[in-house]
Amino acid sequence: MRTHSFHPPVRTLMGPGPSDVNPRVLEAMSRPTIGHLDPVFVDMMEELKSLLQYAFQTGNQLTMPVSGPGSAGMETCFVNLVEPGDKVIVCQNGVFGGRMKENVERCGGTAVMVEDAWGSAVDPQKLKDALQAHPDAKLVAFVHAETSTGAQSDAKALVEIAHRHDCLVIVDTVTSLGGTPVKVDEWGIDAVYSGTQKCLSCTPGLSPVSFSERAMERIKHRKTKVQSWFMDLNLVMGYWGSGAKRAYHHTAPINALYGLHEALVILQEEGLENAWARHAHAHRALLAGIEAMGLKFVVKEDERLPQLNAVGIPEGVDDAAVRAQLLQDYNLEIGAGLGPMAGKIWRIGLMGYGANPKNVLFCLGALEDVLSRMRAPIERGAALPAAHAALGAA
Amino acid sequence: MRTHSFHPPVRTLMGPGPSDVNPRVLEAMSRPTIGHLDPVFVDMMEELKSLLQYAFQTGNQLTMPVSGPGSAGMETCFVNLVEPGDKVIVCQNGVFGGRMKENVERCGGTAVMVEDAWGSAVDPQKLKDALQAHPDAKLVAFVHAETSTGAQSDAKALVEIAHRHDCLVIVDTVTSLGGTPVKVDEWGIDAVYSGTQKCLSCTPGLSPVSFSERAMERIKHRKTKVQSWFMDLNLVMGYWGSGAKRAYHHTAPINALYGLHEALVILQEEGLENAWARHAHAHRALLAGIEAMGLKFVVKEDERLPQLNAVGIPEGVDDAAVRAQLLQDYNLEIGAGLGPMAGKIWRIGLMGYGANPKNVLFCLGALEDVLSRMRAPIERGAALPAAHAALGAA
Repeated sequence: MRTHSFHPPVRTLMGPGPSDVNPRVLEAMSRPTIGHLDPVFVDMMEELKSLLQYAFQTGNQLTMPVSGPGSAGMETCFVNLVEPGDKVIVCQNGVFGGRMKENVERCGGTAVMVEDAWGSAVDPQKLKDALQAHPDAKLVAFVHAETSTGAQSDAKALVEIAHRHDCLVIVDTVTSLGGTPVKVDEWGIDAVYSGTQKCLSCTPGLSPVSFSERAMERIKHRKTKVQSWFMDLNLVMGYWGSGAKRAYHHTAPINALYGLHEALVILQEEGLENAWARHAHAHRALLAGIEAMGLKFVVKEDERLPQLNAVGIPEGVDDAAVRAQLLQDYNLEIGAGLGPMAGKIWRIGLMGYGANPKNVLFCLGALEDVLSRMRAPIERGAALPAAHAALGAA
Repeated sequence: MRTHSFHPPVRTLMGPGPSDVNPRVLEAMSRPTIGHLDPVFVDMMEELKSLLQYAFQTGNQLTMPVSGPGSAGMETCFVNLVEPGDKVIVCQNGVFGGRMKENVERCGGTAVMVEDAWGSAVDPQKLKDALQAHPDAKLVAFVHAETSTGAQSDAKALVEIAHRHDCLVIVDTVTSLGGTPVKVDEWGIDAVYSGTQKCLSCTPGLSPVSFSERAMERIKHRKTKVQSWFMDLNLVMGYWGSGAKRAYHHTAPINALYGLHEALVILQEEGLENAWARHAHAHRALLAGIEAMGLKFVVKEDERLPQLNAVGIPEGVDDAAVRAQLLQDYNLEIGAGLGPMAGKIWRIGLMGYGANPKNVLFCLGALEDVLSRMRAPIERGAALPAAHAALGAA
C-alpha cells in the first residue's frame, strides 16, 4: 500500500480562494530553508513588516503575519482584545460575521448582533442604534468584504461611528486586502486581519494582521491573560518585534514567509492603486459577459466586490453538476454558495494574479459551454463580445 | 525604498530545527496550488492521514496535521482535552514542559508540576507519587524528547503509570517523530503532537497530531465549548474527517501540505526502522568526534536523543561568537541553549535528511577549526578519525 508523490492538476482557481498563485511566489517558497533566528532571516522579517505596512496603508509598529490561516488571524484579534465579560457589537451580513460571534463568546464576551441581509452591506444606521442601546460596548467588529456573498461594507463610516462611542474596531479584510482599498490609518482601524490566498496571490496558510497603538495599549493592560498561548501578542511580539534580539516563541513557517514576501514585493512593484484598478477592470468585463449571458449578480451595484462576484444560479440548473463539469472539462474551479446561499449562487473570484482578461474570457467561455450543454436558459454567443467591449473601454 | 526578492543563503541546518529540508520537499511545495475542497486534494488529504498514521504507528482515525506550527499542535491538544477546573499533572524537564503548564492554566485548569533536572529524563517514580497525591487528576502531560536539552523520557512507562490512575495522556513528540521510535498505539498514547521541521525534514509550519478513541470521547462529551474556534476538533473534523463530503472550516495551507505529503512519502520509502537506525548511526559518529575533541555531552548516555546532541561549552569559550563564526565562515547553524542552559550548551541537530555522515564530518571539521582559532582547550586532529571509525563500525 505504497503512496507516491502527489502531482496536482493545473487548475484555474476562480473561486473564493485560494486564487491563482503567481509562479514567482511558488518559486520563492522552494528556496533553501534557513533558521528562524538567522540574522539574514530576521532582516527578511523586517522587510516583510514594511511591505505589509504598505499593503495595509499603515504605520502601525505591530504589523506582521500570524503563523496560521485567516481564521487564526481572526482569533488572534479576538483573544487579545476581548476579556471575559466584555460586550462586543458584531455586524453580520454573511458567514464570517457569525464566526466573529463564536470568537467573542469563546473568549467569555457577550456578542450583540447587528444583522443585515446576506448579500447586503452592513447598514451604518443599525450600528448607530446598537451602540446607543449598548453604551457599555467595548468593541465593534465587522467584515469589510464578505467572502461568502461578495458584498463590501463602508469600513470608514463604520469605524467612525464606533469611535464616536469610544469602541475599538476589529475589521476582517481577508478578501479585500490587495483587491480594493484598505486604508488602516486613514480609516482608523484598531485591529485588522487578512489572508494570503486571496488578492495577494500567495498560497494559503498565513494571516497578516495589524494593531493600532490604542489596541496595543488595551492588550498590554488586560486584567486577564490572553487565553491562547500561541496567539498571545505579548509573547509573539518578542519574536516579531523590533530590535536585533529576537526571543524564540514558536518556529516561524520559514518558506511560507518567503512566499508572502515575494507576493508583497510583486504588489509593491505593481503599486496598490494599479492593483485595485486591475481588479475593477477585470470585474467590469466579467460583469458585462455574465449579464449578456442573461445571468444576474446578486449584490447591488454599489456594494459589489470586484474580486468576488456572486452570480445567481438560474432556476433548474444543478449547481454541483455545473461546478463538477467545469472542473472536469476545463480544470476551472468556481465557488459554491455558503449557508443560506448554498445552491443559490456561484462565487467567481477575480483575485490578485487571477484578476486578468485571460481568466475572465476563459471563465465566460467555459461557463457558456457547460450551461449550454445542460440546456440552461442563457443567451448564447453574447458573453464574449460584451466582455471584449468592457475590456476595451477601460 | 523598494524591496527586492529575497534570496536566502544556503545554510547547513544543524540546530534544534528547522533541519535541512529534503530538496524533494521544497520542489513539492512549489507545485500548482489547487482548491482546499478539490476532490483531488481531498484524496491527497486521505493519503496524508494514512502516511501520518504510519509515522505515528497508530490506527487512530483522528490523525492529521494542524494548520500551524508545533505550538499550535500543543495548544490543540490542551484546549480540546482540558476543561476549566481540571487538574493536570505536567512533567517538566526542560522548556517545553513549562509551555505545557502555561497551556493548562490558560484553559482554566490546574497544573501540578513534576520537576526533573534539565538534561535528565522524567523520573517515573515522581509521576507515580504525584498521581497518588492527586487522585483527582484527569490528565498527564509530558515531553517525550525535550528539544531544549536533548533528553528522552520513557514514554511507554509514563503512559502506563498514568493509565493505571485512569488519566489520559498528552505527549509532545516534536523532536522524536521520525528520529526515534514513537509508537502511539503500542504505548497507548491518547493525544500526541509533533512538528514537521525536525526529523521529518519538512519545512516548519504544520503540526501532526493524533487522538485515541478515548480522547475523542472525552472531547465529544465536554461540558464546555472548546475555547478556541480555530482549534476546536469538533469543527476541524468536519473538514479532515472521513467521507466524501468535507465541510469548510478554514482554508488549509495547500502547498505546505504538499510538502508534508512528500516528506512522509520519503519516510515511507526509507522505512521507519531504517530512519531510526540512520539517526543512531550519525549520532554515534558525532559523539565519537565530539568526545575525541575533548568536549562532553551533558545528557547521560541512556537518556540521549540521537537527533539532538547537547554539548557542553568549554570554560572560557564565547558561545555566541562561536555560533556566529560557524554561520559566517561555514554557513553552518548550530543551536544555542535555552533558559538555564543558555551559554552552557550547544544543541547540535542530526535530524531527518540532515542525519548523515556528510553533516557529521562537516560539523566536526568546522567546529574544530573555529574552536582552534579561538584557542579553546580542545584536542586537535582527533575528531575526524574517531568519527570515521564510528561510521565504519556501524
